[in-house]
Amino acid sequence: MMKIIGTVAVLGTGLLGASLAKALKKRAVAEKVVAWSRSEQTREKCRAFPSVFDEVYDTPNQAVENADLVVVCSPTSNIVEVIESIVPSLKNGAFITDVGSVKEVVCQACRKVLEDKNAIFVGSHPMAGSEKIGIDFSDPELFEARPCFITPYSDGDERCAKKLAEIWEAVGMKVYSVPPDVHDSIVANISHLPHIVAGTLCNTALKFPELDLRNYSGPGFRDSTRISSGNPEIWDSIIADNRKEIVNALKNFSSELNSIIESIENCQSEKIGKFLRDAKAYRDKL
Amino acid sequence: MMKIIGTVAVLGTGLLGASLAKALKKRAVAEKVVAWSRSEQTREKCRAFPSVFDEVYDTPNQAVENADLVVVCSPTSNIVEVIESIVPSLKNGAFITDVGSVKEVVCQACRKVLEDKNAIFVGSHPMAGSEKIGIDFSDPELFEARPCFITPYSDGDERCAKKLAEIWEAVGMKVYSVPPDVHDSIVANISHLPHIVAGTLCNTALKFPELDLRNYSGPGFRDSTRISSGNPEIWDSIIADNRKEIVNALKNFSSELNSIIESIENCQSEKIGKFLRDAKAYRDKL
Repeated sequence: MMKIIGTVAVLGTGLLGASLAKALKKRAVAEKVVAWSRSEQTREKCRAFPSVFDEVYDTPNQAVENADLVVVCSPTSNIVEVIESIVPSLKNGAFITDVGSVKEVVCQACRKVLEDKNAIFVGSHPMAGSEKIGIDFSDPELFEARPCFITPYSDGDERCAKKLAEIWEAVGMKVYSVPPDVHDSIVANISHLPHIVAGTLCNTALKFPELDLRNYSGPGFRDSTRISSGNPEIWDSIIADNRKEIVNALKNFSSELNSIIESIENCQSEKIGKFLRDAKAYRDKL
Repeated sequence: MMKIIGTVAVLGTGLLGASLAKALKKRAVAEKVVAWSRSEQTREKCRAFPSVFDEVYDTPNQAVENADLVVVCSPTSNIVEVIESIVPSLKNGAFITDVGSVKEVVCQACRKVLEDKNAIFVGSHPMAGSEKIGIDFSDPELFEARPCFITPYSDGDERCAKKLAEIWEAVGMKVYSVPPDVHDSIVANISHLPHIVAGTLCNTALKFPELDLRNYSGPGFRDSTRISSGNPEIWDSIIADNRKEIVNALKNFSSELNSIIESIENCQSEKIGKFLRDAKAYRDKL
């Protein structure tokens, strides 16, 4: 059977990269999967799975030489740097994408880097993963039924976006195509805002006088703060890259919060009731 | 073997009351468990479990007549009313408790109702349960490893508090004894605040222009908003009864939130990093 894509080079084999490699092979999406990792130790781990990784290279440039699709799975802060470095080695007409959780900054930069080059970049953001990181937790089913953004510019070449949509769907994802800035606003609200809110819950509890509130916590506090365990370095860089949209989302949240505080303080039971019912109705349909 | 308590009357057999009845029997804590429910339909459901409920009565007064311990499992707003109505039927020296999630209001009122009566009330708050309610979801393991408050006044009779601690421990709970007002401040921070914050996340998302953000939600948004599905009537009454402490907790949270918004807006990466690391360290030890 004809595969969807020929050779895929996965650059960076952490949780997402390694899971993608496994999924591409398990679901017979790619002819060949090759990889590079910055860490020698991780490259060794990849070499221990020859059924997943056809080749494991010591440099990103070697890895991309024959790749029809390059998926940059490095941390957000390194994506542009990695793409800059591989440009001279790219195959003619190669498609490139990344898996970072902020898109406008990266897409703008890559557009510039690839100007007049025979390669097309379209950003991806597969919303999969967890607070567990690294190749050891990789899982070919990580993407199943999860949402994935692809973020082409409206004036761009459509072929790369179309191929990416096919590939992400083939590993199980629900694909949404939106411009980079719309993506950044959506994830600020649905992902970055909840992360900072969860952190604020922890930091508020942390300051409770004398008692350790964790002793008394139930599943409610547990679930609503779970994402605070995420890697602080990753979140540092997400916040730096999506500052504007995150601040907008936080301010909307804060104004919503002030309004319910006022209602509670003034015993406005009708407003409180509506707040609770609206939230429940919204959440029940998730 | 000697049981911890003779006859327990469970008034109100929703999720908590029915689970308690099952646990008391399964773990051989009580000689006898009798019950009353306001709804005839629920009483019929109780009668279908004769191994759990030795007797099911049509009135609370009949149910408490021979009870050594009365556990009022009605909604918070009805607890005092139920206790007022059973006073004339109580056995001499009976212990009484409730399972409501707010304590100062209820404990104050019950202290008044039982003044000069030969019965002792000490509040309980077993932190078990979920957004699923009603006898159909009842489970003898509901209390396992969960925290439970008992809230005696410092000048009160200690026998009831001691017996309650034994009983809640016997059904699997970790028992903490604190005065009612301290309890209310703890749960405002650990339970009520997260509930209102989760509701605020939903209501903020609800107002996102044009798109339905739920399409793009991952496990982070899902977990951090789960508790919003709780019963709005129960939460109406919790908010009304614990208004002062909830407003305090919300204002502390809001000031913490404003401070991180300011740090993000002003690119104060050191403060942002500390915020993320503090939250992670706190949550990791939950």
